Amino acid sequence: MKQGRLFVISGPSGAGKGTICKELISAGIADLSVSMTTRKPRGIEQEGVHYYFVSHEEFQQAIDEGNMLEWAEIYANRYGTPKKPVLEKLAQGRDVILEIEMQGAMQVKKSYPKSVLIFVLPPSISVLRKRLIDRGTETTEQIDLRTRTTLEEIKKIKDYSYFIINDDLASAVDDALTIINAEHLRVEDEAEDIIQRYEREGI
Amino acid sequence: MKQGRLFVISGPSGAGKGTICKELISAGIADLSVSMTTRKPRGIEQEGVHYYFVSHEEFQQAIDEGNMLEWAEIYANRYGTPKKPVLEKLAQGRDVILEIEMQGAMQVKKSYPKSVLIFVLPPSISVLRKRLIDRGTETTEQIDLRTRTTLEEIKKIKDYSYFIINDDLASAVDDALTIINAEHLRVEDEAEDIIQRYEREGI
Repeated sequence: MKQGRLFVISGPSGAGKGTICKELISAGIADLSVSMTTRKPRGIEQEGVHYYFVSHEEFQQAIDEGNMLEWAEIYANRYGTPKKPVLEKLAQGRDVILEIEMQGAMQVKKSYPKSVLIFVLPPSISVLRKRLIDRGTETTEQIDLRTRTTLEEIKKIKDYSYFIINDDLASAVDDALTIINAEHLRVEDEAEDIIQRYEREGI
Repeated sequence: MKQGRLFVISGPSGAGKGTICKELISAGIADLSVSMTTRKPRGIEQEGVHYYFVSHEEFQQAIDEGNMLEWAEIYANRYGTPKKPVLEKLAQGRDVILEIEMQGAMQVKKSYPKSVLIFVLPPSISVLRKRLIDRGTETTEQIDLRTRTTLEEIKKIKDYSYFIINDDLASAVDDALTIINAEHLRVEDEAEDIIQRYEREGI
């Protein structure tokens, strides 16, 4: 069976990568990977749906055994993507989407080199600022800092295969779909399968 | 200005690459490159439209000066793709499509490494045979030889970036469009331009 592909959607925060991913998932284009965390479940959060909830010991063991595609520690809790459920979906021929921040994306590139890295850009720095101001959760100083961080982050685009400028959501989702579809038309690992298929028939 | 991309559409004969290219050109998606030849114009053929008609000396000079993307000799006449008109279109931001046989495609890959090579496959060997039989221009022996040649040619798919299975013309054209659009979302050479654009604005 044809293998699924792993798409890593990343980029500066505020560029709207989450919204693009939600659209792709709800359209059934690909499956979202479920993160693993050491923090306790909140409210309606369900095991295996919102997160895999584990102890610090279990998380550490997963790291030690090379079973994490990526992970990070945030405020004394760990969050990450376990390898097994992702690889299972790919083996079933499903595409998987991982929405993660940029350091995580680099870890995935190392732990699963066949992953396809997509960088989501805001249409412009001024639009990004406007979005942050409208959100109203940060001070002007924090927004200034964020702008400088974003510019630093955009320099890392060189490590990515594709970019999407998230100006209009519908066309950003279209771009993501184009990338996903095109990746399934790439020869790379398919070459041997294609050759064998025609050879079997031609004999 | 954003550079255009050069797409080389190739593959075994009978797979229908010509029809796909015609659709893309007539839809205005990309420009077709005009070949140069030493043979004389026939009927309504116009200079610069159907071919650039040149003398054997002029053709040899173009080769010697490295001005051919690819060329071949067929029945004492030479045919090939001059570099200059292609590079001019790319510089104007236009995509260019080159429909050529497989040896030519390999020459283009060498002379213009940024070109994107697309391999058009027949849906199956039996469909290819049926198409050739329906065409009625070849004997059974010739068709058998053609089948074996096609199988050999398919092994060369490894040298290509993308493949399109030409089962249904409309979906084959869609696949070509997907590839063309996705190539414009690739980071590669764009990285510096993107970084500079955001930096200029952010300062």
